[in-house]
Amino acid sequence: MVTTMKPCEHLSVCVLLVLCMAAGSVRSGNVLVWYTEGSHWINLKPVLEMLVDRGHKVTVLLPNTSLYMSTSEPSRYRYEPFNISLTMDSFDEHLQGFLHFAIYETTHMSYLQIFTKLIEQITINIELQLQYLDGLLKSPSVMAKLQEARYDVLLADPIYVGSELVAEMLDIPLVFTLRFTAAHIMERLCGQLPAPPSFVPGPLIKLTDRMSFTERLSNFLFYASQDLLATFFWKNVDEYYTEYRGKPTSLCEMMGRVDIWLIRTYWDFEFPRPFIPNFKFVGGIHCRPAKPLPQEIEEFVQSSGEDGIVVFTLGAMIKNVTMERANVIASALAQVLWRYCGEKPETLGANTRIYNWIPQNDLLGHPKTKAFITHGGTNGIYEAIYHGVPMLGIPMFADQPDNMVHMEAKGAARVLHFNTMRSLDLLDALQAIINEPSYKESVMRLSSIHHDRPLSPLHEAVFWIEFTMRNKGARHLRVQAHNLTWYQYHCLDVLLLLLAIVLLLVLLLVKSCGFCVRRCCRRTRNMEKKSKAE
Amino acid sequence: MVTTMKPCEHLSVCVLLVLCMAAGSVRSGNVLVWYTEGSHWINLKPVLEMLVDRGHKVTVLLPNTSLYMSTSEPSRYRYEPFNISLTMDSFDEHLQGFLHFAIYETTHMSYLQIFTKLIEQITINIELQLQYLDGLLKSPSVMAKLQEARYDVLLADPIYVGSELVAEMLDIPLVFTLRFTAAHIMERLCGQLPAPPSFVPGPLIKLTDRMSFTERLSNFLFYASQDLLATFFWKNVDEYYTEYRGKPTSLCEMMGRVDIWLIRTYWDFEFPRPFIPNFKFVGGIHCRPAKPLPQEIEEFVQSSGEDGIVVFTLGAMIKNVTMERANVIASALAQVLWRYCGEKPETLGANTRIYNWIPQNDLLGHPKTKAFITHGGTNGIYEAIYHGVPMLGIPMFADQPDNMVHMEAKGAARVLHFNTMRSLDLLDALQAIINEPSYKESVMRLSSIHHDRPLSPLHEAVFWIEFTMRNKGARHLRVQAHNLTWYQYHCLDVLLLLLAIVLLLVLLLVKSCGFCVRRCCRRTRNMEKKSKAE
Repeated sequence: MVTTMKPCEHLSVCVLLVLCMAAGSVRSGNVLVWYTEGSHWINLKPVLEMLVDRGHKVTVLLPNTSLYMSTSEPSRYRYEPFNISLTMDSFDEHLQGFLHFAIYETTHMSYLQIFTKLIEQITINIELQLQYLDGLLKSPSVMAKLQEARYDVLLADPIYVGSELVAEMLDIPLVFTLRFTAAHIMERLCGQLPAPPSFVPGPLIKLTDRMSFTERLSNFLFYASQDLLATFFWKNVDEYYTEYRGKPTSLCEMMGRVDIWLIRTYWDFEFPRPFIPNFKFVGGIHCRPAKPLPQEIEEFVQSSGEDGIVVFTLGAMIKNVTMERANVIASALAQVLWRYCGEKPETLGANTRIYNWIPQNDLLGHPKTKAFITHGGTNGIYEAIYHGVPMLGIPMFADQPDNMVHMEAKGAARVLHFNTMRSLDLLDALQAIINEPSYKESVMRLSSIHHDRPLSPLHEAVFWIEFTMRNKGARHLRVQAHNLTWYQYHCLDVLLLLLAIVLLLVLLLVKSCGFCVRRCCRRTRNMEKKSKAE
Repeated sequence: MVTTMKPCEHLSVCVLLVLCMAAGSVRSGNVLVWYTEGSHWINLKPVLEMLVDRGHKVTVLLPNTSLYMSTSEPSRYRYEPFNISLTMDSFDEHLQGFLHFAIYETTHMSYLQIFTKLIEQITINIELQLQYLDGLLKSPSVMAKLQEARYDVLLADPIYVGSELVAEMLDIPLVFTLRFTAAHIMERLCGQLPAPPSFVPGPLIKLTDRMSFTERLSNFLFYASQDLLATFFWKNVDEYYTEYRGKPTSLCEMMGRVDIWLIRTYWDFEFPRPFIPNFKFVGGIHCRPAKPLPQEIEEFVQSSGEDGIVVFTLGAMIKNVTMERANVIASALAQVLWRYCGEKPETLGANTRIYNWIPQNDLLGHPKTKAFITHGGTNGIYEAIYHGVPMLGIPMFADQPDNMVHMEAKGAARVLHFNTMRSLDLLDALQAIINEPSYKESVMRLSSIHHDRPLSPLHEAVFWIEFTMRNKGARHLRVQAHNLTWYQYHCLDVLLLLLAIVLLLVLLLVKSCGFCVRRCCRRTRNMEKKSKAE
């Protein structure tokens, strides 16, 4: 009989792996890190910490409008600041405007209005990104410093464009770290990641890998529409690149040179799908064992007795919700720790405590935690999977609804709609995920998958970054599909030739049959004439 | 600057990894191993040894006609013998007949003759395999023992059919270990491994991933023809399975339930290609550091002085070649260790020594070894890659010519044709791979790729076998493509609907245009009539 391994047994494996990797270490690599924001930055920091631990020099590009990165924060990596012509306030205003649209406005808008607004938002976003890039490329002093530093690798999240251009200019390998792009558009079109629409649902579409005919149709059209939108939106970037390099250059072609794509998910979260050798799935990089809680929080947690506690957060981006929605939530909660920055709701019970900030990972790892009410961000979901806590999703925007569809399909979560849920719905759903054993069992299964892999996600990410430095790239993992046109890739030219041959053969057959029939008829007629003549 | 890691530095990593994996070990799993032969068995043995090292019970199914496995050989795993109604001699006769056909007869045969003979050989092979299966399934005592033993996993090479049926009967997970099937037929059709014919050359076709139009056409037709052949050949197995289970059962459907496919290659040998999460590439399982040579061989090696030695073997299956071919080879060789069981060629030089058996791995790892003349079997190629020795390929049959195309494309080998090469060709090619630095550089690059991975292939193979035992399968890695028909997989039904809609719209447009034109014309005519009337 086989004894199932408990997640905690793996921790010792991870610790030992640090020792193992040290044996094959790269001595003092020089890593350049592209600017990033929000949860992307949270996810990147542990990687940078480990790179520093392993003796590498790490330099992070830092725009003056950064919300999350700051030179004043103590850190062991160096910042390379640069200025962009945008103020912090106007950047924040743009962000808050987008969040308000995504969370509240969409419910009152028609599909056409949403689509128009989205197009507008994406256009603004690309313009913003090119402003960032301007700040970097058009600063001779910063560019000279980058050239002089002789970096070994550039580590970047491709949703912030420009890293591929800078890596090319510095002539260094490029490693991407990416959660997703809509309908896998960059991964598919630029990275050559295969994604058959029949069983690989495009991110954002809220479908699983088990699709009905109409769902497959939707997914197919989603992929196709995103492909069309990309050719439209990427034109601006292509023009920018072409102008800068002085020769025809496309964003996608530049991205095709990326050595390694570190995808921030794994098969605990993703539906199994085809991929290629330079795509590495490293979901859960930031997860770590729980540390002891601050005393005041620990006391509140302990006061819950047998019932245990529920952890509730809508993520770092959502600082405030309307008072009506806040009341709906507050009146449903019992012993809950709620991370919330807005005004205290009137219906808040004695058992619910609100915090500006909570040690989310440590709380999720606390034995008294029974459930996690989450907006469905990937980082939070991964912490819940890591510690095996069932989820109640109240997704707000971006990939959150789609993420929760994954967790619901895998049996580890229930999902409510933020704008329409009532207090009773919240209470019912919460009781279900706490009391029905299937939710706990499912999330423990995911937790087991998460922990039971040859290398921890953090170690795997660091391994491939170092691999790229050691081998000056990872060309041997790059598929030849990059050098094929779309019709060559799908063998449509081959099929066309075969079809032409078949048609020609059929035509020949019909013609020769016709010829034979005519000859036969003529002979019969001649015979008849002959016999008549006789 | 980054210091490149030398392969030997990784050895310490591997040793440490053993310690690491022990921490997350499965206690005393019970592993059943399917019967196998030849290089497949050589490749499997290190896995079984490590499973035993890690505390598992290993039982190997052993037919009475086995050429490589024997209960008399000292081993740490248990054999479960069974009898088949075939004698050892008739089995050997069949094998030698096939080898003679594959090596010599094909040169004098037309394509049609080769095809007919191949069909005949495959038919005999399947019949043979079903005889083996009979020996197992129709022995109540053996089957009872298998049922009683309560195994945790069945480990099998799918080129020996039947393991999927037995795993299903015993209700245990199944792990495949496979080098390849022709045109990836089992992997594609049964395992759902994606293989676009445009850049994934089918094994055996001797193409690389850079194909011209005609090569893509050949590859496409190769895939298609193998698919057709499979439906024809697998019918017998389907019938056997259906009869045994008493309900409609197909080989491919049963293979679709396999938990993990351990593929015995890696990106040092393979061209990069798409794959799915339950395919793990563990090429080089049997490779290990060189041990000291027996004294007599070491003396001969040392006597080569500065020039170094060449290792030459045509593999375990080829015991003898014609005297004419042996003379061609012998007269070309200088300081060479030749593993050869045939009659001593007349032209054999003083510097060439012939052995019935050589410690191939230890010789390839010897610092004096300059080149490896090989038949191109995967095991030998992997030892050359592991130790970084340039290759001269003289492929004989099966996958050997295709394997050597891989090594030639990667710049690590030259290839000669056994039946047509002259002594001078052999000498020229040998001098080229020894004296032109590009061959050594290329094979050292492959060696670096081989060694520079997160886990050694042996550890990775054992990890996934244990994973399957711990988790009672690996369902979470199984793609939904298994549940789609071929036209659903490629979205052809979706495309058909979209095409129908487009055609309908065009038809509507044409009709309404026609209607408008007609109305316009009528009105004009009426106007004209009216004006005439006035």
